[in-house]
Amino acid sequence: MKKYSIGIDFGTLSGRAVLVDVENGKEMASATKEYAHGVMDEKLAYTGESLPPSYALQDPNDYLSTLEEVVREVVEKSAVDKSQIGGLGIDFTSCTVLPVDKWGNPLCNLDKYKANRHAYVKLWKHHGAQAYAEKMTREAKVCEEIFLERLGGVVSSESAIPKLMEIMTEAPDVYQDCAHFIEAGDWLNWVLTGRLTRSYLFAAFKNAYVEGVGYPSKKLFSSLDKNLEKVIEEKFSGPILKMGEKVGNIRREWLDKLGLSGEIVVSTAIIDAHVAAPAVGMKKSGDMLGVLGTSACYMLVSDKEVKVQGICGVVKDGLLPNLYGYEAGQCCFGDHYAYVAENITRAEYVDEARKNGVSMLELLSSKAEKLKPGESGLIALNWWNGNRSILVDSSLTGLFLGMNLNTKPEHYMRALMEATAFGARNIVDNYKAHGIEVSRFIATGGIARKNPFLMQLFADVLGLNILVANNPQAPATGSAINAAVAMGAYDNFTFAIEKMACDYDKIYYPNLDNKAVYDELYLEYIKLHDYFGKGCNDVMKTLGKIARKA
Amino acid sequence: MKKYSIGIDFGTLSGRAVLVDVENGKEMASATKEYAHGVMDEKLAYTGESLPPSYALQDPNDYLSTLEEVVREVVEKSAVDKSQIGGLGIDFTSCTVLPVDKWGNPLCNLDKYKANRHAYVKLWKHHGAQAYAEKMTREAKVCEEIFLERLGGVVSSESAIPKLMEIMTEAPDVYQDCAHFIEAGDWLNWVLTGRLTRSYLFAAFKNAYVEGVGYPSKKLFSSLDKNLEKVIEEKFSGPILKMGEKVGNIRREWLDKLGLSGEIVVSTAIIDAHVAAPAVGMKKSGDMLGVLGTSACYMLVSDKEVKVQGICGVVKDGLLPNLYGYEAGQCCFGDHYAYVAENITRAEYVDEARKNGVSMLELLSSKAEKLKPGESGLIALNWWNGNRSILVDSSLTGLFLGMNLNTKPEHYMRALMEATAFGARNIVDNYKAHGIEVSRFIATGGIARKNPFLMQLFADVLGLNILVANNPQAPATGSAINAAVAMGAYDNFTFAIEKMACDYDKIYYPNLDNKAVYDELYLEYIKLHDYFGKGCNDVMKTLGKIARKA
Repeated sequence: MKKYSIGIDFGTLSGRAVLVDVENGKEMASATKEYAHGVMDEKLAYTGESLPPSYALQDPNDYLSTLEEVVREVVEKSAVDKSQIGGLGIDFTSCTVLPVDKWGNPLCNLDKYKANRHAYVKLWKHHGAQAYAEKMTREAKVCEEIFLERLGGVVSSESAIPKLMEIMTEAPDVYQDCAHFIEAGDWLNWVLTGRLTRSYLFAAFKNAYVEGVGYPSKKLFSSLDKNLEKVIEEKFSGPILKMGEKVGNIRREWLDKLGLSGEIVVSTAIIDAHVAAPAVGMKKSGDMLGVLGTSACYMLVSDKEVKVQGICGVVKDGLLPNLYGYEAGQCCFGDHYAYVAENITRAEYVDEARKNGVSMLELLSSKAEKLKPGESGLIALNWWNGNRSILVDSSLTGLFLGMNLNTKPEHYMRALMEATAFGARNIVDNYKAHGIEVSRFIATGGIARKNPFLMQLFADVLGLNILVANNPQAPATGSAINAAVAMGAYDNFTFAIEKMACDYDKIYYPNLDNKAVYDELYLEYIKLHDYFGKGCNDVMKTLGKIARKA
Repeated sequence: MKKYSIGIDFGTLSGRAVLVDVENGKEMASATKEYAHGVMDEKLAYTGESLPPSYALQDPNDYLSTLEEVVREVVEKSAVDKSQIGGLGIDFTSCTVLPVDKWGNPLCNLDKYKANRHAYVKLWKHHGAQAYAEKMTREAKVCEEIFLERLGGVVSSESAIPKLMEIMTEAPDVYQDCAHFIEAGDWLNWVLTGRLTRSYLFAAFKNAYVEGVGYPSKKLFSSLDKNLEKVIEEKFSGPILKMGEKVGNIRREWLDKLGLSGEIVVSTAIIDAHVAAPAVGMKKSGDMLGVLGTSACYMLVSDKEVKVQGICGVVKDGLLPNLYGYEAGQCCFGDHYAYVAENITRAEYVDEARKNGVSMLELLSSKAEKLKPGESGLIALNWWNGNRSILVDSSLTGLFLGMNLNTKPEHYMRALMEATAFGARNIVDNYKAHGIEVSRFIATGGIARKNPFLMQLFADVLGLNILVANNPQAPATGSAINAAVAMGAYDNFTFAIEKMACDYDKIYYPNLDNKAVYDELYLEYIKLHDYFGKGCNDVMKTLGKIARKA
């Protein structure tokens, strides 16, 4: 059996690869590369045209060049015997989808569509499809679709069908020429192996696929639009594979590009947030994993299957074999802190940060940390990019309340930090209210390691111990574990996790004095959350409509 | 008859004098001087001790040195024949009060009290007495006090008795040694003339005095505290004089200090916001005057006396003879814009402002102006320093709602500008709802002349023509008119206004397209105003309590 596997984590702004020893999970090398075009949310790079406010597009060619570069780099840096590399696995943000032709060419690479924004990758946080998602929710209720309760009762505007409906309505020619509407992760695997497959995880969490039931009914699709009746056959063909299954071997052309040789197995693609689960050692019912970065995902494994309102989904074997995997999330997490640092500061702070050679984010965070719980006098609703869980409404917006003439930028920062933690608690409490206990919280992602203050805040607000995984590349490692299983290094996933998962290098314990104050603030947060989020006052939507008219 | 009078306007941060020709109101010279200690809201200058957050104190010695300097300067600059100066009138912020001994010495000048914050002037916007004001409102309802409905149904924490109760409770020794608790305007007149008098306007608007009824009942005072039963006799003695009445002549000692000579009549002090009314030519029932500066006062004259909830007061002859004078206000107006400029900006804007040599306030205002109505997507509640009218609650705080990741500092600025205009409209609508029409809006104060965009916004939001008075020193001129009447240059006030009031140099007309958008936004503003301001959700008060505990 070969000794190494490669995992590649395709995030929102960059891809990162790790090359690991399949025997013990040890990382031999890692490499990162940012996408050349990043996220196109203001302008389409090819034409320079301004994009509508809810847009978030990517250029699929960026993924290919990133893939090539990071794999070459880890192979070189690790200096391992190349012939001992036996598997490659990728994980990807989701639902991040693109229209391709029947050979797998992205439509945005065709001359006729280079200037058409609907031919590009619609990134997970592209929110142009809200109206279609709402329609699909309504019709799915009428049709009593089984998938709906598995996906928290509401179809997300981030999922695949609403994004495809957006294309169908706004760019019929692109829709016509789209032979496959495919997750970027599945598309990369197709490119690598020449085999079109569909990951069970993308299908189940983001495209309403239910094991034993299948995709939604033709009745639902035709009620959405008569041309959609056969949408699954027409646009979503391909066999569905589970975690640890083999898609195929890397083709010669790509072996050359990646600087690899021999037989290298490619495993099914996994959702980037989910793939960290095995890498950080999730194993028992009640374990929750928070992947805390620009956005936040909260994964939970449980031996119970319960219908939970407002989560992103519950999927059997969705995170770990033989357990139900639940996903919930905050579509804007660290983005909030970056936002404050960019937009809410004082001239003297700008000078101070420059003088001390620190970023504004560092400066404001350190000032915010010095405040006592509740001292800011502020409360926020952390909805700068809508609310994913538990309201599933991308048209919600942010709120700051409590300002007086002495309120300073660090007070806003602190309030938003607290609000993101309150949002996490609300997700945990929602599970509890549905009878599912959360007993352990493992944190990973950039913020979990870089921001001890925020992790302590999480422990205080959640009243849970927070275990920080000592693997900064947990998703990429998870993909490498996935690849290790696919290449046959282990008979099953459980054994692979046992050997390859990381340990914890830091545990945060709740400070009960702080928790008492946060408990009070949380009650106020929930009152505002329910008032503005549950239809008592639709001012956020109304302002959005007025702004669009202006 | 002598030819000139001097008016001196004591504002929040500075005093300004004008010397005018009593025949036509023509300004011969003006002078301004800032108070040496400004507003002490963070530290007490003498000890350096930190003050509680709701504090706003001043040093009365600053008023004396300002008085001396500005009067000397206008006399010199105007180069008029000194023997032709016949009167001097002052107006003052109110309720701005200080404890003095029986000779009129401020207690803060006594060695034993120099370090005691309660011995200093409590500025109008000092909000340490909220709890006492609430108690007085409750007890006044029980005692069915007539003054209460004249003062909008709620006792303001800014008024005299709550401020005195704060001293009684928190500094009993200062209370004991306070022979007179006196408005700074009345105190200055006492210093100048040697005669202790009380201005009818201070008494009526800020100390619950009702013509024909008198001060509140002993029953009320003893229900507040048994030691307060005789508070009026003990701390508020002195005859009550109306506008245009003579307090006395300037004493020799002060003639010398001011560089004046002969018989110079001092007129009753007037509230700074009210005194502009004659200077800008208010005359008809339905005329409203907005004095727009760091805070905003809205004065209205009407031939009807109606009980209006949430105003600061209605007083017969309170603004103009033979009309009912109504006052309402926003205790934080321009302060909001200065706040945003100081606390909500971007590093690149700091560089841009420096490069272009403009202030951040100018930069953000110009960016905010370029936005279309409603384009910001934001709405604000302009309560950074509580709400004076129509909620009369200093414990309310600010709100921003509607933010997304593209929200920039100018959006916050625009939203707060709109919110202050909505607050003004709410005051106007409240009068209408009580059957009092507002038919003309005259604007004065720094912002009225310096910010054309904001004046257009007011016209659009209020749906009224906005007339801008062409006298930048309207309050000081009003004081000079008051002095002209007191010195006998006119038989009555109406004649004096006829001759001495200024004209208008700019009229803003409503843009009906803009108004239609603002009408929509205003509905949302009112919904939030009522929800957070009328007890549906007390989160602002709760956060304040939690912050004070922290």
